[in-house]
Amino acid sequence: MKDDCIFCKLANGVIPTNSIYEDDDFKVIMDANPVSKGHALILPKEHYADIYDVDEAVAEKMYPLAKKLAKKMKEVLNCDGVNVLQNTGEAAGQSVFHIHMHVIPRYKDAKNNEKLLGFVAAGLSEDEIKEIAEALR
Amino acid sequence: MKDDCIFCKLANGVIPTNSIYEDDDFKVIMDANPVSKGHALILPKEHYADIYDVDEAVAEKMYPLAKKLAKKMKEVLNCDGVNVLQNTGEAAGQSVFHIHMHVIPRYKDAKNNEKLLGFVAAGLSEDEIKEIAEALR
Repeated sequence: MKDDCIFCKLANGVIPTNSIYEDDDFKVIMDANPVSKGHALILPKEHYADIYDVDEAVAEKMYPLAKKLAKKMKEVLNCDGVNVLQNTGEAAGQSVFHIHMHVIPRYKDAKNNEKLLGFVAAGLSEDEIKEIAEALR
Repeated sequence: MKDDCIFCKLANGVIPTNSIYEDDDFKVIMDANPVSKGHALILPKEHYADIYDVDEAVAEKMYPLAKKLAKKMKEVLNCDGVNVLQNTGEAAGQSVFHIHMHVIPRYKDAKNNEKLLGFVAAGLSEDEIKEIAEALR
């Protein structure tokens, strides 16, 4: 546990919160500023800052846990879809530097749908995309 | 392979594309409509529609692969962060119904940062959040 980390405290029960799931590796809590009904956060109990830092064995379990939660959300909340989102870095919208995976149920009729997770084209040409692909290969 | 599925064709080389990684389970390609420089898609070679449908063993490998790509993007593209995003259902922005995980490098100075993946509060009360948590437990 990292002393000054709020998510370490929430994941390890030092600060009480609305938890919906717990196992040896993770606690899942309700986001305190939800963007939809049921917006949850998967928090590893161990402290890792982000995707670069997270332990491989922990990383393996995160998306399957999101799947488990997504199924429960569909069943219980009758949502129409779900976003699974993990942000690394301030430039990507990360505000707490303890890795967390958002699981966000989505509803057809939600008022904020258009603004939520809206994709905006970067305006790259096909050649530019090819060049980037070569660099990343 | 599902006959009428474009991502099955891309993942299995039936249609050529800008691929940046391949193994037994996955092909990683450049998104044809990138929201940032380096926007990639992790495609399982097997056809699964979404998070509810995806095989457990495949699900385990997806986020670790995103981590591998994120590290490569940081090194090669010098990005300032990364979003890992998997959308299930039309209400969540899924447009191709073959599961895919977006890996989106982010840059401090990008023009579309504000609009991209902007979180908009759903306006739920603390009591409402507690009720939802109880239902999901």
